[in-house]
Amino acid sequence: MLLNPNLKFARMILITWKVDLIMIALCIVAYWVEVHVLKEYVHIPAAIPTLMGTAIAFFVGFNNNQAYDRWWEARTIWGGIVNDSRSWTRSVLFYSLGAQTDSKLFSDRFDEAQAIPYRMIKRHLSFLYALKRSLRGSGEEDYKTYLEEADQKTVARFTNIPSALLDLQNQDLQLLRERNQVDGYAFLALNDLIVRFSDGMGKCERIKTTVFPVTYIYFTRVFIWMLITLLTMVIADEAGAWSIALGWLVGFVFHVTHINGLSLMNPFDGNPASISLNAIVRTIEINTLETLKNPQVPAPVEAVNGEYIL
Amino acid sequence: MLLNPNLKFARMILITWKVDLIMIALCIVAYWVEVHVLKEYVHIPAAIPTLMGTAIAFFVGFNNNQAYDRWWEARTIWGGIVNDSRSWTRSVLFYSLGAQTDSKLFSDRFDEAQAIPYRMIKRHLSFLYALKRSLRGSGEEDYKTYLEEADQKTVARFTNIPSALLDLQNQDLQLLRERNQVDGYAFLALNDLIVRFSDGMGKCERIKTTVFPVTYIYFTRVFIWMLITLLTMVIADEAGAWSIALGWLVGFVFHVTHINGLSLMNPFDGNPASISLNAIVRTIEINTLETLKNPQVPAPVEAVNGEYIL
Amino acid sequence: MLLNPNLKFARMILITWKVDLIMIALCIVAYWVEVHVLKEYVHIPAAIPTLMGTAIAFFVGFNNNQAYDRWWEARTIWGGIVNDSRSWTRSVLFYSLGAQTDSKLFSDRFDEAQAIPYRMIKRHLSFLYALKRSLRGSGEEDYKTYLEEADQKTVARFTNIPSALLDLQNQDLQLLRERNQVDGYAFLALNDLIVRFSDGMGKCERIKTTVFPVTYIYFTRVFIWMLITLLTMVIADEAGAWSIALGWLVGFVFHVTHINGLSLMNPFDGNPASISLNAIVRTIEINTLETLKNPQVPAPVEAVNGEYIL
Amino acid sequence: MLLNPNLKFARMILITWKVDLIMIALCIVAYWVEVHVLKEYVHIPAAIPTLMGTAIAFFVGFNNNQAYDRWWEARTIWGGIVNDSRSWTRSVLFYSLGAQTDSKLFSDRFDEAQAIPYRMIKRHLSFLYALKRSLRGSGEEDYKTYLEEADQKTVARFTNIPSALLDLQNQDLQLLRERNQVDGYAFLALNDLIVRFSDGMGKCERIKTTVFPVTYIYFTRVFIWMLITLLTMVIADEAGAWSIALGWLVGFVFHVTHINGLSLMNPFDGNPASISLNAIVRTIEINTLETLKNPQVPAPVEAVNGEYIL
Amino acid sequence: MLLNPNLKFARMILITWKVDLIMIALCIVAYWVEVHVLKEYVHIPAAIPTLMGTAIAFFVGFNNNQAYDRWWEARTIWGGIVNDSRSWTRSVLFYSLGAQTDSKLFSDRFDEAQAIPYRMIKRHLSFLYALKRSLRGSGEEDYKTYLEEADQKTVARFTNIPSALLDLQNQDLQLLRERNQVDGYAFLALNDLIVRFSDGMGKCERIKTTVFPVTYIYFTRVFIWMLITLLTMVIADEAGAWSIALGWLVGFVFHVTHINGLSLMNPFDGNPASISLNAIVRTIEINTLETLKNPQVPAPVEAVNGEYIL
Repeated sequence: MLLNPNLKFARMILITWKVDLIMIALCIVAYWVEVHVLKEYVHIPAAIPTLMGTAIAFFVGFNNNQAYDRWWEARTIWGGIVNDSRSWTRSVLFYSLGAQTDSKLFSDRFDEAQAIPYRMIKRHLSFLYALKRSLRGSGEEDYKTYLEEADQKTVARFTNIPSALLDLQNQDLQLLRERNQVDGYAFLALNDLIVRFSDGMGKCERIKTTVFPVTYIYFTRVFIWMLITLLTMVIADEAGAWSIALGWLVGFVFHVTHINGLSLMNPFDGNPASISLNAIVRTIEINTLETLKNPQVPAPVEAVNGEYIL
Repeated sequence: MLLNPNLKFARMILITWKVDLIMIALCIVAYWVEVHVLKEYVHIPAAIPTLMGTAIAFFVGFNNNQAYDRWWEARTIWGGIVNDSRSWTRSVLFYSLGAQTDSKLFSDRFDEAQAIPYRMIKRHLSFLYALKRSLRGSGEEDYKTYLEEADQKTVARFTNIPSALLDLQNQDLQLLRERNQVDGYAFLALNDLIVRFSDGMGKCERIKTTVFPVTYIYFTRVFIWMLITLLTMVIADEAGAWSIALGWLVGFVFHVTHINGLSLMNPFDGNPASISLNAIVRTIEINTLETLKNPQVPAPVEAVNGEYIL
Repeated sequence: MLLNPNLKFARMILITWKVDLIMIALCIVAYWVEVHVLKEYVHIPAAIPTLMGTAIAFFVGFNNNQAYDRWWEARTIWGGIVNDSRSWTRSVLFYSLGAQTDSKLFSDRFDEAQAIPYRMIKRHLSFLYALKRSLRGSGEEDYKTYLEEADQKTVARFTNIPSALLDLQNQDLQLLRERNQVDGYAFLALNDLIVRFSDGMGKCERIKTTVFPVTYIYFTRVFIWMLITLLTMVIADEAGAWSIALGWLVGFVFHVTHINGLSLMNPFDGNPASISLNAIVRTIEINTLETLKNPQVPAPVEAVNGEYIL
Repeated sequence: MLLNPNLKFARMILITWKVDLIMIALCIVAYWVEVHVLKEYVHIPAAIPTLMGTAIAFFVGFNNNQAYDRWWEARTIWGGIVNDSRSWTRSVLFYSLGAQTDSKLFSDRFDEAQAIPYRMIKRHLSFLYALKRSLRGSGEEDYKTYLEEADQKTVARFTNIPSALLDLQNQDLQLLRERNQVDGYAFLALNDLIVRFSDGMGKCERIKTTVFPVTYIYFTRVFIWMLITLLTMVIADEAGAWSIALGWLVGFVFHVTHINGLSLMNPFDGNPASISLNAIVRTIEINTLETLKNPQVPAPVEAVNGEYIL
Repeated sequence: MLLNPNLKFARMILITWKVDLIMIALCIVAYWVEVHVLKEYVHIPAAIPTLMGTAIAFFVGFNNNQAYDRWWEARTIWGGIVNDSRSWTRSVLFYSLGAQTDSKLFSDRFDEAQAIPYRMIKRHLSFLYALKRSLRGSGEEDYKTYLEEADQKTVARFTNIPSALLDLQNQDLQLLRERNQVDGYAFLALNDLIVRFSDGMGKCERIKTTVFPVTYIYFTRVFIWMLITLLTMVIADEAGAWSIALGWLVGFVFHVTHINGLSLMNPFDGNPASISLNAIVRTIEINTLETLKNPQVPAPVEAVNGEYIL
């Protein structure tokens, strides 16, 4: 997530330089061909690039709208996971250990009654780290920090680790129920939260694994190349060699818009415009540990170069 | 689902060749008529194709938006089915067999208490394969793999096999309840999941059986023919025979956009842009079998030609 | 619901002939007035119709978007009713009669325990037919087919028959509960379905009884007449008598789009583009009767002239 | 809610006359200034109004979309209240009085067991009238018709009467529960409906109390004045005094669209385009009284002048 | 929330003066450069700013749509919190203290049975003030007004105070359950409300902490500068020094639209266009205290200068 609306000039160049070079090259070729080859044989009416512009503006706009929707939906899903995570911690804690729990938290020794809920709360942090890892496609192992060794072994043989962790949560919930540590009503409330975590996880996977229809991205690019080629030719007579610069300028507007959309399209990618999963997961971690009166609360995630948060 | 934003040139031709030929033929005819017949009698002002372009751009855009929405809704429904399927497996397992189940899984012999939940979990895989089959309209019989013979006979006389399988799930849930293998609270949670599967199934059927209003598709095509005919005539004087190529170029932009929309309109069709049901169902299958500690987990679905996943 | 994207030419004429005649008459008058009256006194700049075109394109687009949304929402509501209807049949059946019910279905005689659930399931089919009747505004009495005589008498004095039928369903659900044929949990699940039917019914009524803001429809028509009048006058000099045809052509594009929207605006009307309620209700009927092992399952609804399904 | 798409000419004038006068005055001034003052000093290129037109068309379109969404959301909320009201009547009745209630309804004397549910059902009608009153900002006292005197006194000291009525509903629901007239499951179902009424009420208040961002409305008007001023000046040379009429014509299209949006923006206002709360509340009243076998059912609300329903 | 659609002229200047100055400066420079430097070397065709206008109009429109959606979503979330807050007060009161509570409210002394629900209701007001404080980023301590000292100490060590307050609510709910002051069904209803408060809080935080993709804001500004620079140059010949004014005028339309969007983008900021949290929280406070028969009900929030409500 980029933080500063006054983009550094360096970043702007970073974002556009590749496309700029291609466009300038294209405009030069188009200008040369128009002036030295086509001029005498063909005259392209100005209506052509104008008419094409309408359709292309739609394409670019359509891509941007859908990309933004994917990005915002991804953010909303994680927002939901944040909220439910807080509900999870407080529900597991008080419903299984009773209202007087608070005063006993983190005494040096705790009996088995406390062991299960604590395990479930910490395992949830592990679930979040594992989900982040699978969405980012990184190989980080930090999800193991909050996971007991037995659990680590259990999940190792699963393709989908976050899902396997939810299996364990359901198992422990059933255990609480069998030990009568929670009654049927609390069981319903906690089960509902697990279903919602499963839902949130699956929604993230949907966004990650569903490629945006590639024909839209591909043809948009092709159409923009066509547009600036034609435009440069159309204005070559009137503007001379400056038509190269002007063709590039128009292409710049269309292409940068298109690139902006692309940067939001895969919101879990880990590029500067992506959802800041690191910061979100850390926030939940801090909230949870504070509720558990854990004295070692980590610091919030810092911005990279003061520019963006991952 | 197409995978690679750098479409192979062959696929691009495959997508557009039919429409290209028609458009070029149309432009040639329009050019010939304009030059040899109409020229002396009628002069078409350039404002006409421009004005028409606005309305047509809306039509094409409208179709594309609605088509994308159908496609994304279809994907979202299946995403929901994935999530609920995982919840189903873990809920049936632990709520009916108890928290210690895990250690006993897939021993060589199991008593009747285990038989029912196992049947319900496997029957759910069958439900997914049957649903996929009915949406794709294929005749595949692979839904029988996970279905006991008695069930196969029962569902044979039904028009709608996935729905019949859900009937059986409800029946077994009632059985669990009568045997007191699940209590009322777990009953509620499991019943809720069956209702959601019924919902997901019905939503898919709605998308499959509801034809997109055909007047939109039909008139869009008619309008694009009208546009490029008029455009070719309008620019014939100025651009000469090149107006054929330019008319085609503008038509190409409009028509390809329109075709892109059409390819998303029926997302269960089985064309390269469709929802990759094979891959999705296989993913659930793998997750489920891993939870059941089944040693024979199938491999994920491979991309066809490295181009798309069905 | 129209089925075939290749509209028959006859239907295309059927859809547009009225508007075509009006537009051609209007263009002739505009042309005559321009040439014989206004020519010497007033010159209308071409920027005027172009500017107006932008605003009108928005109007037409806006109407179409909202009309499509009404149509798709209507379809979605009925899709939801389909899904919940299936859940209703299987839930009533198994939760009130037990898991072994299936083998006993449709024996020649059944005791009172079976009578109530059967009545509830059949009354639901009656509810669907009554809802369809009230939405279509037809006087069909086919909702009585599945309704016991006592019920027929009871609902006769109600303004809103589908709602009265739901009253009876609630009454029977309470009866099941009093007879201890369903426990509290199944009661909750069934009550939830009745609430959803009430919801679906009310949503349909909302769409049916809420007139689309008429100012939009009215002024769109007025604006299109204004546009083609001005356009014909603007191009009269350049295009001569052909300006009548060209004015009509542009009007055709705008007006047909507008008409397409209108045909979706009242999705329960019973015109060829409406929601195919007959087919949907029949589908539920078939599914329900198959679940009840009823040997007399009716055939699906046929397309009218192979063109559309009502 | 306006009923007839063929607006009476009188209404069309009623809607637009104010704006028409202002625009004509503005165009006359612009024309006079252009011809007598600016002509020699400044020439405004035609590209200026065209470019401005694009941005303004967006503004107007944006306002209309959001206004329509507010209007449709308001209608949807009330649609939900209708559905839940029916569920409320039948649930309160049968769940608290039992399945045999129907035959005993409206006997001349009823015991206390019947008194509470009857009070709750009638108080709900009172809630609807009170909510309508508070949304319309009218001082009507008709909400007292269905309210016992004790209740009337209780709610008198509250700022928000509909909310106070829901307080009383919750109190009575608790009373039913304490008297064991409803069990826990029916309690949950009824409590859920009260929460939904609270939700519906709050959503209406949100729409009523949230002013649409006024900068949009203000600047849209300013921009349209700017557009037609410039346009009249641009075409003054070409069209002469007719440019006043043409400027007005273009302004008419933009402004009427804008006004259409404004009329939907505050859907509880009580203007002819508003949500027809009178008719909706009456419909619920009729349905409820019929269910209670009340012989005095009022007639549906009539259209005002056959033009619109309030 | 601004109240008056007739903006004071002073506010209009306040909103736009900065951008106006920059634009006028830019136009002057562009005009000077065109006339004194570029005129002889380069001629910019009018098609360039027109084509750019299309893409930029999309950008501005896109930003506005998304900004409005954020603003309206924020308002909707708080609307939901209002509704649930009323449900909370009445549910806690009657479900834990019984239906006869009303008559005993605010007697001078109350036993412990009353103490807990009263604490929960007041703590909810505290939650609202704390949430407002954290969203506005203000340092106000008014959330302590309704908070017992013990609670004040408990929450002091938390980063996220509203979340810590919800922890306490869950603890007290568990206490009520342990004391059998609420049964399982009421427990479910109250737990559900706490989950919804957690949800609402998290949704607000999501909107607050998620920066709108800055590339959109940045490039929109850059593109508008580019557009008016080019436009001024294009019309310099035709309009002379007036092209500075005309360039500014077009820029004014685009930029003001853009600024309008920006003012809605961060709806919790505390600028005049923001969500009026003060007023909303006060409304809930008034409703709650009236229900508790508290004689000291504060007055509603007043508008600032009669212009806007915070």
